[in-house]
Amino acid sequence: MNDTSTSFPSSRKIYVSGTQHTDIRVPMREISVSQTRLAAGGYEPNTSVRAYDTTGPYGEQPGSVREGLPALRREWVTSRGDVEEYQGRNTRAEDNGYSNDEQLRHAFEKQNGKLEYYPGLRRKPLRAKSGNAVTQMTYARRGIVTPEMEFVAIRENMGRQGAPESAPITRTSLGFQHPGFSFGAAIPKVITPEFVRDEVARGRAIIPANINHPESEPMAIGRNFLVKINANIGNSAVASSIEEEVEKMLWATKWGADTVMDLSTGKNIHETREWIIRNSAVPIGTVPIYQALEKVDGRAEELTWEIFRDTLIEQAEQGVDYFTIHAGVRLAYVPLTANRMTGIVSRGGSIMAKWCLSHHKESFLYTHFRDICEIMRAYDVSFSLGDGLRPGSIADANDDAQLAELRTLGELTTVAWEQDCQVMIEGPGHVPMQLIQENMRLELEQCHEAPFYTLGPLTTDIAPGYDHITSAIGAAMIGWFGCAMLCYVTPKEHLGLPDKQDVKDGVIAYKIAAHAADLAKGHPGAQMRDNALSKARFEFRWEDQFNLSLDPERAREFHDETLPQEGAKSAHFCSMCGPHFCSMKITEDVRKYAAEHAVIAEDALLIGLAEKSREFAQSGSEIYSIAITEVA
Amino acid sequence: MNDTSTSFPSSRKIYVSGTQHTDIRVPMREISVSQTRLAAGGYEPNTSVRAYDTTGPYGEQPGSVREGLPALRREWVTSRGDVEEYQGRNTRAEDNGYSNDEQLRHAFEKQNGKLEYYPGLRRKPLRAKSGNAVTQMTYARRGIVTPEMEFVAIRENMGRQGAPESAPITRTSLGFQHPGFSFGAAIPKVITPEFVRDEVARGRAIIPANINHPESEPMAIGRNFLVKINANIGNSAVASSIEEEVEKMLWATKWGADTVMDLSTGKNIHETREWIIRNSAVPIGTVPIYQALEKVDGRAEELTWEIFRDTLIEQAEQGVDYFTIHAGVRLAYVPLTANRMTGIVSRGGSIMAKWCLSHHKESFLYTHFRDICEIMRAYDVSFSLGDGLRPGSIADANDDAQLAELRTLGELTTVAWEQDCQVMIEGPGHVPMQLIQENMRLELEQCHEAPFYTLGPLTTDIAPGYDHITSAIGAAMIGWFGCAMLCYVTPKEHLGLPDKQDVKDGVIAYKIAAHAADLAKGHPGAQMRDNALSKARFEFRWEDQFNLSLDPERAREFHDETLPQEGAKSAHFCSMCGPHFCSMKITEDVRKYAAEHAVIAEDALLIGLAEKSREFAQSGSEIYSIAITEVA
Repeated sequence: MNDTSTSFPSSRKIYVSGTQHTDIRVPMREISVSQTRLAAGGYEPNTSVRAYDTTGPYGEQPGSVREGLPALRREWVTSRGDVEEYQGRNTRAEDNGYSNDEQLRHAFEKQNGKLEYYPGLRRKPLRAKSGNAVTQMTYARRGIVTPEMEFVAIRENMGRQGAPESAPITRTSLGFQHPGFSFGAAIPKVITPEFVRDEVARGRAIIPANINHPESEPMAIGRNFLVKINANIGNSAVASSIEEEVEKMLWATKWGADTVMDLSTGKNIHETREWIIRNSAVPIGTVPIYQALEKVDGRAEELTWEIFRDTLIEQAEQGVDYFTIHAGVRLAYVPLTANRMTGIVSRGGSIMAKWCLSHHKESFLYTHFRDICEIMRAYDVSFSLGDGLRPGSIADANDDAQLAELRTLGELTTVAWEQDCQVMIEGPGHVPMQLIQENMRLELEQCHEAPFYTLGPLTTDIAPGYDHITSAIGAAMIGWFGCAMLCYVTPKEHLGLPDKQDVKDGVIAYKIAAHAADLAKGHPGAQMRDNALSKARFEFRWEDQFNLSLDPERAREFHDETLPQEGAKSAHFCSMCGPHFCSMKITEDVRKYAAEHAVIAEDALLIGLAEKSREFAQSGSEIYSIAITEVA
Repeated sequence: MNDTSTSFPSSRKIYVSGTQHTDIRVPMREISVSQTRLAAGGYEPNTSVRAYDTTGPYGEQPGSVREGLPALRREWVTSRGDVEEYQGRNTRAEDNGYSNDEQLRHAFEKQNGKLEYYPGLRRKPLRAKSGNAVTQMTYARRGIVTPEMEFVAIRENMGRQGAPESAPITRTSLGFQHPGFSFGAAIPKVITPEFVRDEVARGRAIIPANINHPESEPMAIGRNFLVKINANIGNSAVASSIEEEVEKMLWATKWGADTVMDLSTGKNIHETREWIIRNSAVPIGTVPIYQALEKVDGRAEELTWEIFRDTLIEQAEQGVDYFTIHAGVRLAYVPLTANRMTGIVSRGGSIMAKWCLSHHKESFLYTHFRDICEIMRAYDVSFSLGDGLRPGSIADANDDAQLAELRTLGELTTVAWEQDCQVMIEGPGHVPMQLIQENMRLELEQCHEAPFYTLGPLTTDIAPGYDHITSAIGAAMIGWFGCAMLCYVTPKEHLGLPDKQDVKDGVIAYKIAAHAADLAKGHPGAQMRDNALSKARFEFRWEDQFNLSLDPERAREFHDETLPQEGAKSAHFCSMCGPHFCSMKITEDVRKYAAEHAVIAEDALLIGLAEKSREFAQSGSEIYSIAITEVA
């Protein structure tokens, strides 16, 4: 379990085929469970549970990171007939942060393990023929159901096939209408490929799927689908090697990351990214301005549109699936941050603010936005419109700077959609609970229901070291309110670079937040796993309880700390109360007692109680008869 | 820091005196912070921050657990003239789980360290003279401001004295009225002793303060005060010694537990409790039915009112501040649980359900409720009306069984109030997010605004090993909605007994939830610590950031993992981005740039921009002039 290549206990990878596209095979993880021992004797089977699986081929058998993953989508992309192979841009020394080839060579020699050209397959890049859009949005708008869309539909129906029968909770809180429900379409009972298509066409969902990242398994980000989570990785000038970053990416997807952002800075950015993309079954996002800044040695004022444009093409050819572009940080908004508690905390936002002030000019990302769209549509790179002015503290939440930028992001969304580009909107950050709903509502209103993608939000500033928790609270809430993807925060946020354990802790906190949101939204099938686990817990099927959990190893480990004997895992009691004092055991006795007096437990009890009712009525119990009526 | 006797860095204990009662000294922890280095040169001081302190005398100097704490409240209690010393009940072998004195003696000899009579001061117990009520509620209703009430008022104003000037967020989310706001009084700007009195008189808050626990520092539980948290400790038949439990209690209060529940089962319950109470500066709660059950060797059907009554008196004489009493588990409600996913999961609920069914009789807790009130009012033990039928899984949330019991708890609240008993109401448990608000609303409606005290709630069942997180989400939300106290859940929930690390993880997760709720409720002063920490973060005052956090040691440790050099803690960059790429550094540059062009940063920028505005208007930037207008 501490290894990315080891699979989960009692789990096997299964594949579900498409019907419109018979060559697609959608991976799922099937968790088998044991039988229920009936109180009356004998056994009753329990249905296995299917879990959404983001591990890609690594979930089945360990691959070689030096060879990369098979090009699952290559054929789908080329068969559409609208793309062409071309020579592509030549890699330069500056792409890896060196000023000339001599320096680069030196780096290769010196930095053992820290820099190595990616050894696997090097394909020529693809791009759209003659300025076409080759985005999932353009196909959707033409009424085409792509293999990617059907893949997503099958994936999203997860948990509804073969799930244990039970009554899922679909009620929403009485009288409480949250913004996610008052806008747009609702989550349907079954997700069809056509529903996926329509959501993408409307801009309400995106399928990040660069034509040069054929290794990726399609997934959707939109509020009528399962809530997704993103994990950030990336080396920095201070730490990390390429191999560590690839391992972190695999590790993050093992625990359930739906997308991964490579936020590398410093040296060797280009090669680090190449290794990551070639091995990633999930979409990869980046913030291209980070690399552009490296190319001008960290001097923001020296950035130019040409350097940025070249970086976009460099990364689009490698296969990055979405770009964070901080085009909403406009010159006029910068003064709005001067009196903030924590100024501008977004790196991209800071860079652009500095550039704008230095030149007394409007941001080139804003003035060149249509040019950026042309690149994005030629490779199907999705926009993740960055919130460069997001609040960095509770005190700055929902302030003028943040909201001014949000309006601009809405304006840019319309421009991007005109060119069939896919768009999601980044959001904060640090927000106290009472202002979270407002964030979601304003995003939906002003960005025309484009999917929202927030960092947390953190609901308090006072717990550095525990910001996966301060932010999981905000993330669960905004996920429920309609946020489509939650960017994780690790325990190291604000303090240092996350290591492997931090990545896992962050991913699991966010799987919890996303799943809690799916439950609250009434996403069909979401509750099946909760029900299966709770049934196992109640029936003392310890192994099943472990296996159905998000982290089977930790669950088992915690159990074994108190009761290490193997026998304890089949015992009908547990360590919290000891052998003679267990509420679940007592409840079993209650049911058994009832069963001994009649056929069905509840009826039996009712009959028993009815016989005694006169007696109890005499003892002065006024609520008794009322309750009986309610039961009947 | 790994020791309960060590205090927090850069912190000192201060005491604030009362004005109505000049002998009271309210403890606070004052965290000193360093100066701000101004960009223009020179320094500017920052005000120290005061934190609510639950450590009692142990926060100042390590005491001896064998001697116990000073009897802070003894004089206040006796000077009211309505209590009397009496001989009290004799401790029996069965109180510690042994059937006769011979067995008990044997236990003392055999179980080194596991059983020892409490060596400290043994006072005669106090009780009300001739059936009086000696509760805080009875004084409040007579218009008396007790020392306890003034103590609470001073404590609750924490963070408002000497806090840094800033603009706290008081806006609530637009158009969203949650139940905590639509009922009753709002949180005043300053908490006066009279406000405390009025809230207690109205039953909207309680001050758990048994007259036999004079060591405790008064605190209030009510939704117009700071949200409180409870930590559960307790040995069980399977594990733990007395000393470990005392250490856990001190440890829990070190990290911020406002009350501690001793949920011990098995042997030596009486002595464990004695050690805990004599050393506890926070109120102690128990579930007396656990001990009563031990006295009948775990056979629920053999419980009697007499045994239970005797146990109540035994514990009231020791000084337990609140009792969980599951009087709402009525015979008629038991069948409502038969078809649940997870039946009855509350231990107390299970015991009473079994008793009711075995005897085909109404619960003796319900039929003897007025007798119980007579005991509670004679010692000022507060009721914590137990939710014995709380849901044990998402599938069972807000079902008929739970809601039937809640109505009965409301009925019992009225009865208890008639006798001037203080009451809070226990709540779930496992609740998906969309049903949390309903829980709070129904509790306020049906239990007449008595304080709500919930276990989490957990917002999903699929993460055993991480239930401090699944439940911190629900706890923060219900705290915001008006829940007065949050019972912590540790990572070991459902799996095993919490060790010291689990207790700390649980307490910190719940301090986060409670504080996030205080912020969202707009509790005056709550945001001061966030602001101070964020300001320190922004100004690279690393030591201040650590010291102001909930867990200074962990914050420092995480920072040092990436940048261990001492110099890094005064460096104006951090490990996330490296020396040349820091958003905070860039923002500093932005401000500096602005400052160089005029006196005040914002004005300077506006002037600068205005001069350039024509130029930008020509470049086709339509939003620009609008934004300028907004800024002005």
